[in-house]
Amino acid sequence: MAAEGACAIDLNADTGEGFGRYRMGPDVELLALVTSANVACGFHAGDPRVMDATVAVAAQRGVVVGAHVSYPDLVGFGRRHLAVSSEELVTDVLYQVGALDGICRRHGTAVRYVKPHGALYNDLAADEALARALADAVRSYDRSLAVLTLPGSRAADVLAGTGVAVKLEGFPDRSYAADGSLVARRHEGAVLTTPGEIAERGVRMALGRPIASVTGSPVRVRADTLCVHSDTPGAPAIAAALREALEEAGVTLRPFA
Amino acid sequence: MAAEGACAIDLNADTGEGFGRYRMGPDVELLALVTSANVACGFHAGDPRVMDATVAVAAQRGVVVGAHVSYPDLVGFGRRHLAVSSEELVTDVLYQVGALDGICRRHGTAVRYVKPHGALYNDLAADEALARALADAVRSYDRSLAVLTLPGSRAADVLAGTGVAVKLEGFPDRSYAADGSLVARRHEGAVLTTPGEIAERGVRMALGRPIASVTGSPVRVRADTLCVHSDTPGAPAIAAALREALEEAGVTLRPFA
Amino acid sequence: MAAEGACAIDLNADTGEGFGRYRMGPDVELLALVTSANVACGFHAGDPRVMDATVAVAAQRGVVVGAHVSYPDLVGFGRRHLAVSSEELVTDVLYQVGALDGICRRHGTAVRYVKPHGALYNDLAADEALARALADAVRSYDRSLAVLTLPGSRAADVLAGTGVAVKLEGFPDRSYAADGSLVARRHEGAVLTTPGEIAERGVRMALGRPIASVTGSPVRVRADTLCVHSDTPGAPAIAAALREALEEAGVTLRPFA
Amino acid sequence: MAAEGACAIDLNADTGEGFGRYRMGPDVELLALVTSANVACGFHAGDPRVMDATVAVAAQRGVVVGAHVSYPDLVGFGRRHLAVSSEELVTDVLYQVGALDGICRRHGTAVRYVKPHGALYNDLAADEALARALADAVRSYDRSLAVLTLPGSRAADVLAGTGVAVKLEGFPDRSYAADGSLVARRHEGAVLTTPGEIAERGVRMALGRPIASVTGSPVRVRADTLCVHSDTPGAPAIAAALREALEEAGVTLRPFA
Repeated sequence: MAAEGACAIDLNADTGEGFGRYRMGPDVELLALVTSANVACGFHAGDPRVMDATVAVAAQRGVVVGAHVSYPDLVGFGRRHLAVSSEELVTDVLYQVGALDGICRRHGTAVRYVKPHGALYNDLAADEALARALADAVRSYDRSLAVLTLPGSRAADVLAGTGVAVKLEGFPDRSYAADGSLVARRHEGAVLTTPGEIAERGVRMALGRPIASVTGSPVRVRADTLCVHSDTPGAPAIAAALREALEEAGVTLRPFA
Repeated sequence: MAAEGACAIDLNADTGEGFGRYRMGPDVELLALVTSANVACGFHAGDPRVMDATVAVAAQRGVVVGAHVSYPDLVGFGRRHLAVSSEELVTDVLYQVGALDGICRRHGTAVRYVKPHGALYNDLAADEALARALADAVRSYDRSLAVLTLPGSRAADVLAGTGVAVKLEGFPDRSYAADGSLVARRHEGAVLTTPGEIAERGVRMALGRPIASVTGSPVRVRADTLCVHSDTPGAPAIAAALREALEEAGVTLRPFA
Repeated sequence: MAAEGACAIDLNADTGEGFGRYRMGPDVELLALVTSANVACGFHAGDPRVMDATVAVAAQRGVVVGAHVSYPDLVGFGRRHLAVSSEELVTDVLYQVGALDGICRRHGTAVRYVKPHGALYNDLAADEALARALADAVRSYDRSLAVLTLPGSRAADVLAGTGVAVKLEGFPDRSYAADGSLVARRHEGAVLTTPGEIAERGVRMALGRPIASVTGSPVRVRADTLCVHSDTPGAPAIAAALREALEEAGVTLRPFA
Repeated sequence: MAAEGACAIDLNADTGEGFGRYRMGPDVELLALVTSANVACGFHAGDPRVMDATVAVAAQRGVVVGAHVSYPDLVGFGRRHLAVSSEELVTDVLYQVGALDGICRRHGTAVRYVKPHGALYNDLAADEALARALADAVRSYDRSLAVLTLPGSRAADVLAGTGVAVKLEGFPDRSYAADGSLVARRHEGAVLTTPGEIAERGVRMALGRPIASVTGSPVRVRADTLCVHSDTPGAPAIAAALREALEEAGVTLRPFA
């Protein structure tokens, strides 16, 4: 991955997180800047109309569509741990990916990857049974589907071990510890907000160069895609700065899936 | 359709109408007898586990899977009219068909037809805009998907006019008026319960022969498939009687899709 | 009502229409200006946290709390007609009013009135059975609960006939026909947006004076409360202008319940 | 409690666990036998119609109504741990208790106690913050509400410490360890099914006498109420046997709240 990452990278963002009359995030602006869109599937956010509108714009812009799958918890926005069984995860994932793929057909596109959302994303970092269930679901659906996950997570290992294409995600707006793990959001300085600084770190990740960890020591973050947090104020400006800096550095922006 | 109906017919039943810990209908028994299974997709009944268990048995038995799509009304079991827009129906149908198809992939099968459920089924008999929206959804999903509907309904005409494969449904356990319309359930004698009588009417429908209408005059019911109501007490015995009578009459049982 | 309306009036607004992480409407600003808050109860919007936060501010401000009851349709925001039975409406209303009242207890307040929302509000204008069901629910809950409804609606007559305290709602930002009915929103000029004009019409309503109908002829709108549409851009400015104009005209702002 | 338990006891059962067209448990039979009914409030089961029908029978039979509150997880029947915050639990409990109380008003009764359901019940055995949140909710709602919980649980201590009336629950159909804790259901012999044996153990609990623990040593189970599991096959026969044995032993059946 490092070799490819040195010359090409993907930008991803969470999109389609409205519901009914509610809107969330600058979807249209972000879909003009990223190469991959994580689209909510109705379990933590999204409904068939929001999904349809999001996929329509993504398809028009040539943005690759991924299924942003979640625990079933609309009121909690998928951010609360729920003790699901393996069988529950497998079937919930197949349901969500299929539902989004159904919407995609109307717009001449298709789901090309899966990104776990919120508490599920976090739980997959350490829970092997959950990671195996995700692998089962993805492989049952389509063996060419990729999964976007955290470098160093249990999920990354387990999924790769089952033959699923694992794509690693870097967070240019987050501080990293010296061991390459993310500094928890509750710590001061865990989240960066200056577009220029974020862009500079994103370029380093894309080129395979180390960034400064929270202790100052250099740390190399392996990344096939850079995440633009759509709920950060000024997200489109950050994405634009990142995109421009990557292009200036000679990095090709290309969907990972 | 009449010519084919004379020697082959399909049997369909509603299945997968449980939810969570709730069960409804003798799914396993019916799936041993019918050739097509209308599987609930989570909007009026069904959840990913119930859908998975239902599709698993259907696939094992060689029963064709159809998406039993509904208005979003779990507490009302999809039996209440809801004033949806065309866009809402299109996207709700794509979501449901896709979700079920996602589950089907785990079992090596696929959604081959769509059957509207409950209030939506009834509304489609007369509402042209709704029928056009259903046609849009079905054609966007897969041009080879069939739609199971009521003979003489507005939906049958509209769907056929848009090139969708329309399959007509006969109800051997229901009384028909002389004009071929169903006698409303609230009228005495509208629903038959004797397996032998139901089976005999089903055979007549399959062979293209007239049955006695509620006034006694003969009426011919065009049918590509015969519906076995899974919520009738003794549904498996009725299905078995119907199946046996059809086989004795030389009618081949064959999925319509 | 006219006599009291000549010297005192209520201002109401829809509040608590967020859900989960979603927010809608300038609740805090409006709760500083109105005397009655229609609080969503989880069926078209609102969840226990949103309800709690809304009631907390209302209680602190001395704003009276009403239950903004709806058909169960979160994804449709309660704006779609749903064919519910009388029994379904009675029990859905009791559930919603009770739930909100449960939240109110934490803040030393209580539900004092009921306002039907969206499609239910509209359906109650003409559907007598629905109006009777609402009356049954309200009287079962608490005979002192008022109901906020449209002047001239079937609901107003039916509810009053069963002894329920009916409170009539005027819309200073809407055009009226010469017969006192509202001009439908789809017509040009149906919705006014100038704070000054809205405030002037509100004062006339409060004082029992006629306003100009859409044809120019004067029409008297009976009103115990004036509605401030919280989804209009600039709603707080409109409410502030209305409130100031009322006070200048010597009209007392006082909750109707 | 022991002194009162020697001559009077309560019998409780879970009721109203249907949803929409789904039914679960022999509610009508059990409501003729128990003195307290735990009624589901729509979060793990139950809907306004099911709640209404259940409360109607309870009120007619003189059975006391309790709110069977749950995590919001209809598809999981409230049996899955969900990581809720204290604020989420407080508001979810107020919402559920209030909603049921709203239904109760139609039948001239009221919620008199709260019983946590499923995963929430289990989590409360050890999670002090959760217990404090429950206490907050109960005290905010009505200081005279009792809470039904497990002897020896963290919740029992915390709730009692905040002044909430704690009522302890015995399970005559479950094996107990020598320390008074329940033997987990997965162990052989953890659940008893013989009505006579269950009745005999229930009488011992009511009289304050020890029962045989799983190791044979005697263990005293403090109980203000005995739980009849409504999902056990033959639950009404077990309840009837228990009731008869209690009456024969001179124990008065009396609601605890």
